[in-house]
Amino acid sequence: MKQHDYAVIMAGGGGTRLWPVSRKNRPKQLLPLLGEQTLLQGTVARLADVFPAERILVVTVAPQVAEIQHQVPEIPAENYLIEPAPRGTASVVGLAATVLMKRDPEAVMAILPSDHFIRNGRLFQYVLTESFELARKGCLVTLGIAPLYPSTAFGYIEQGKPFEDNLKYPVYHVRRFTEKPDEKTAQAFLGSGEHSWNSGMFIWRADVIRDEIRRQMASLSSVLDEVQRTWGTAEQEQTLQSVWPGLKSETIDYGVMENADRVVVLPAGGLGWSDVGSWDSLFDVLLQDAGGNVTSAAQNLSLETHNTLIYGDNSDRLIVTIGMDDTVIVDTGDVLLVCKADQAQKVRDVVELLKKHEQERYL
Amino acid sequence: MKQHDYAVIMAGGGGTRLWPVSRKNRPKQLLPLLGEQTLLQGTVARLADVFPAERILVVTVAPQVAEIQHQVPEIPAENYLIEPAPRGTASVVGLAATVLMKRDPEAVMAILPSDHFIRNGRLFQYVLTESFELARKGCLVTLGIAPLYPSTAFGYIEQGKPFEDNLKYPVYHVRRFTEKPDEKTAQAFLGSGEHSWNSGMFIWRADVIRDEIRRQMASLSSVLDEVQRTWGTAEQEQTLQSVWPGLKSETIDYGVMENADRVVVLPAGGLGWSDVGSWDSLFDVLLQDAGGNVTSAAQNLSLETHNTLIYGDNSDRLIVTIGMDDTVIVDTGDVLLVCKADQAQKVRDVVELLKKHEQERYL
Repeated sequence: MKQHDYAVIMAGGGGTRLWPVSRKNRPKQLLPLLGEQTLLQGTVARLADVFPAERILVVTVAPQVAEIQHQVPEIPAENYLIEPAPRGTASVVGLAATVLMKRDPEAVMAILPSDHFIRNGRLFQYVLTESFELARKGCLVTLGIAPLYPSTAFGYIEQGKPFEDNLKYPVYHVRRFTEKPDEKTAQAFLGSGEHSWNSGMFIWRADVIRDEIRRQMASLSSVLDEVQRTWGTAEQEQTLQSVWPGLKSETIDYGVMENADRVVVLPAGGLGWSDVGSWDSLFDVLLQDAGGNVTSAAQNLSLETHNTLIYGDNSDRLIVTIGMDDTVIVDTGDVLLVCKADQAQKVRDVVELLKKHEQERYL
Repeated sequence: MKQHDYAVIMAGGGGTRLWPVSRKNRPKQLLPLLGEQTLLQGTVARLADVFPAERILVVTVAPQVAEIQHQVPEIPAENYLIEPAPRGTASVVGLAATVLMKRDPEAVMAILPSDHFIRNGRLFQYVLTESFELARKGCLVTLGIAPLYPSTAFGYIEQGKPFEDNLKYPVYHVRRFTEKPDEKTAQAFLGSGEHSWNSGMFIWRADVIRDEIRRQMASLSSVLDEVQRTWGTAEQEQTLQSVWPGLKSETIDYGVMENADRVVVLPAGGLGWSDVGSWDSLFDVLLQDAGGNVTSAAQNLSLETHNTLIYGDNSDRLIVTIGMDDTVIVDTGDVLLVCKADQAQKVRDVVELLKKHEQERYL
């Protein structure tokens, strides 16, 4: 990466879609779902190959800072941007762009979730390098994922004409962003060959996105003006604390991207990407054994078992399966989940039920 | 029950067919599989309604005595018969008959496993009363179970002519004992209406069975003669210790019953009996909820789950199932078993594999 290139990691999220492993106070990016590393550590490791640690920023909330510093000590303390309260990705992007511009007026930034899984880190790094080249030219680059199946769980990006002829990697003008489609529409998108999944990863110049926010999100922009005025002064913290809670929660996709100029999509295939949005989506990207199983339990014995995910976090416990197919088994200290894989999204219903019945200790 | 009637409970067994709940040192009769009571406690409770505790004997092995005394303190210490080593049911019967005859030459005894489940205790008590009446006449009574399906897991008893005309409960001469049949034979047995499952429960006069042992099992009989000679003397323990280990392990079924005289079968229906020989056989006799599920976990939340057995022994753990059918889930401290119900018998293969790989701690 070049001198003015920065990576901004969004690490403030909560969410319980990987319940019971992810919990209210233990979001999935901070958990070792897939081996030794946590998703956050994996994200930082992928970036640290191509960015010096001084140019990797983390946006988070106060309660998560200590754990993040513990997990990725290489990130300098001054690179933490701490939101008083989470207010959606638009405000994260705005805050990061504002702070980076004070630090480096020529900053180009990638905005990246901390809780995604990417199996092919090298290809990702290459795609990122190409994206920064495009961003330097003033483009708002969205990283699209070439769809593997007609998912109804992702937003889609429809590509228009090629952006330029001579690029090493094909890039397109964006014709349209669409929200999560129904099954039939998803099938049509997949068949068209002109739609990518929206990964939520973007690359742009800090000044370009800041201008777009000014043009399209007036109230966020005026808050960012306040932040910019006081950042680096004694008032920095006080200003942030006073202006931030009043912000409306919005995503950068709908707040800015849909009506921005010079938006391009780089549809990446072969990344082995997953947003790890549910147990079955996690299963899709993991390498399976000969029986189609994925096992993270230290002690496991499976007979006649196929296409089954076995997650165990206790190295002394033996997990035995007999005759199981297409099942997700998640064994944690206080909760056991046994779930048919194609119904893994119902974990959300379970979480809602537990909330309703005030079973706080399991949330 | 009448003055000379005794119940002898066989409680020395090991076995790991309900692994991982039953273990090498924690046999299933000593476990609360089905509620508050252990199977042993259930067995004693059924008997204690109709026998005074002084006439309930327990045959076991030394390592289990303390736990049994803890679970059923009502049984007097002098009613424990402790085998130096288990040598099959023939030697248990011989020992009990020998000891009882010294105590009460007119003794009539029921020999009963400690690890069976009987839902309908009252009916069992009635059947037992009838059986003692027959035994008093000199019959060797076998308690048959009217078969519910063509099981290949049990031995069968083929009935011949009715034993007498005026009995309240139909009783038949035994034509034949057969070992566990194949599927086709089991189907034929079920269709014939003339076969019962062999429950392993017998009722007879102590002197009658002792005579049969003398006639058919000469070496066991001479050992029993030694025991009889020294029982109640200072040599009792020393004799037992020296003669018992040399015995061949044999069942009373094959050692005596197949060629005995005056053998009758009382085919009992409606007992709600199970030998609790595997997780699915246990499931058969338990009362299911509207979804067909049986749950012993204190904290349980099941969505779209049917015909599933959920066993949990930790009251703090939440067990969640989504979309599961015909599954057995057994959650213990150090082992989790998730098993398709119709493959529950493969638990034995798992136990064998663990032995082979010297995973002693899980056995």
